[in-house]
Amino acid sequence: MTLPTPGLPTTGLPTLGLVGLGKIARDQHIPAIAATGLFELAAVVSPDGDSAGTGGVPCFRSQAEMLAALPGLDAMAICTPPAVRHGLTVEALRAGKHVLIEKPPAATLSEMQDIAAQAQAARRTLLTAWHSRFNPAVEEARQRLADATVRSVAITWKEDVRRWHPGQDWIFAAGGFGVFDPGINALSILTAVLPAPVFVRSAELHVPANRDTPIRAMLEMRAAPGAPVGVVTADFDFLQQGEQTWSIAIETADGSRLDLTHGGTRLIVDGVPAMAEPDSEYQRIYRHFHRLMLDGASDIDARPLHLVADACLVGRWRTTDAFHW
Amino acid sequence: MTLPTPGLPTTGLPTLGLVGLGKIARDQHIPAIAATGLFELAAVVSPDGDSAGTGGVPCFRSQAEMLAALPGLDAMAICTPPAVRHGLTVEALRAGKHVLIEKPPAATLSEMQDIAAQAQAARRTLLTAWHSRFNPAVEEARQRLADATVRSVAITWKEDVRRWHPGQDWIFAAGGFGVFDPGINALSILTAVLPAPVFVRSAELHVPANRDTPIRAMLEMRAAPGAPVGVVTADFDFLQQGEQTWSIAIETADGSRLDLTHGGTRLIVDGVPAMAEPDSEYQRIYRHFHRLMLDGASDIDARPLHLVADACLVGRWRTTDAFHW
Repeated sequence: MTLPTPGLPTTGLPTLGLVGLGKIARDQHIPAIAATGLFELAAVVSPDGDSAGTGGVPCFRSQAEMLAALPGLDAMAICTPPAVRHGLTVEALRAGKHVLIEKPPAATLSEMQDIAAQAQAARRTLLTAWHSRFNPAVEEARQRLADATVRSVAITWKEDVRRWHPGQDWIFAAGGFGVFDPGINALSILTAVLPAPVFVRSAELHVPANRDTPIRAMLEMRAAPGAPVGVVTADFDFLQQGEQTWSIAIETADGSRLDLTHGGTRLIVDGVPAMAEPDSEYQRIYRHFHRLMLDGASDIDARPLHLVADACLVGRWRTTDAFHW
Repeated sequence: MTLPTPGLPTTGLPTLGLVGLGKIARDQHIPAIAATGLFELAAVVSPDGDSAGTGGVPCFRSQAEMLAALPGLDAMAICTPPAVRHGLTVEALRAGKHVLIEKPPAATLSEMQDIAAQAQAARRTLLTAWHSRFNPAVEEARQRLADATVRSVAITWKEDVRRWHPGQDWIFAAGGFGVFDPGINALSILTAVLPAPVFVRSAELHVPANRDTPIRAMLEMRAAPGAPVGVVTADFDFLQQGEQTWSIAIETADGSRLDLTHGGTRLIVDGVPAMAEPDSEYQRIYRHFHRLMLDGASDIDARPLHLVADACLVGRWRTTDAFHW
């Protein structure tokens, strides 16, 4: 999508408001904004008023307050929990702001479709920031597979929820995505690197008896007949003890094998490390966002969310042991 | 979407191939094709070879055979079960055919997105035929609500699955939609008549212990803040004894009430019958398909499927009593 109006201010850096000051904002967004030097972090929104670590920029209790106080802001980065992203994104777009949204960009597909329509109507840049895609190893894998025939893909995404989301009950509440919260990162890589789309054929979803979202999910996906992609399996597990695994193993028809490991940050080709870069995905996100604003364009992709919803739609839901922290 | 190439033959009626010769094809499509007189039913596909009731037109075992034998066909009507619609639709589009698809147009959202992309690439007409929308009472309701503020909507869609789908185990198998098979008709009406989009906020899904899809589903939907639509509830029940109900009750802020009853075929305004037409929805579908081909346009809508997938994504899944026919 090309926008008719230029997206950058004529003088100075574009100013950015950061909405939602949780772990991902502090660990990733603020350092990446500082490191890239392409945006001026002009304000933050923190509902509890705690703005420690933001360098003393103005802090507001809501985005609406921030927009009213600082009408000249150029862009927003929405880092809140998923449930409120749709409303905040629409509010920001209608106020004429460019918007970067953390993954997943919305809680539902209906919201996702509305966000895309609103961005088009507002003629503003929208970036659905599927962060795992921004690792250089992912782009390298995409290029290597662009003309390949993929025989099989096996996604193994196994982590210990007690270690990575300790006490975060929202992840197991209805709409909290459960094990799809990390799993959607794998699907965002999958849809970025494969040379053809794949479709969920079956899924098995295990929900703890005392929770509402899956703690384990196993998916089988296939491409259309004749497409250069074979079977794709995914095993998402939130109860992994010991070694944690975030890997995608890809076998091609010519007998070679690509392994994207460590969440997509490393690429191994036929057993030989081909790329291992430090984790710079958020810097790449902000460079991409800046470039999109410069070009008057958007990057809106619902495919990872489609695959999760499809798994929920066609999957077999099974009740498993109750989960306690 | 406007297509650059004209969609109708220069002489004679456009020829149509009917793919899938089940109950809906025999009860609705074939009579509607005959009654409207806008298409020549030129061939049918029936995997079991039974083409009784089609007036002796050529019958093939697969769409591929039909396309090979009759390459000049103009259009296809896909009336198979949902699981194979995506593959058949893509095959027909790539063969240069215009395509009408029964509801739901695909088994998953990923397939739905691919179908829309393929129709655009093939530059052919695609109609996702949400048949319940084609009742005149639905269009009348849409017009009455276009400038209204809708205070509330209550959808009640309660039928006896033993009466309407006797022995059809596929409907309770994974991917079979369960009570969403009829319920999606209500959602196709809802999305057609409301003046603003709504989003699933919560859902409760009851799955029999020996089945995989919901036998009952209760949804709560809401529009965006500030939109002219209040709360929307839906109660889909497959175990309704006695009177069968397919109704949508709509209250507006000015105190009036619209009732769409009998699956959207009748409209009652403030208690007074305003419209009750014989069931002509399939004739309207074929007129619309013909018009789209004439205009070189498509009518592709995924919103009802989005709402079903959203309910599965954010819903609470509960196991209920086993279901036996």
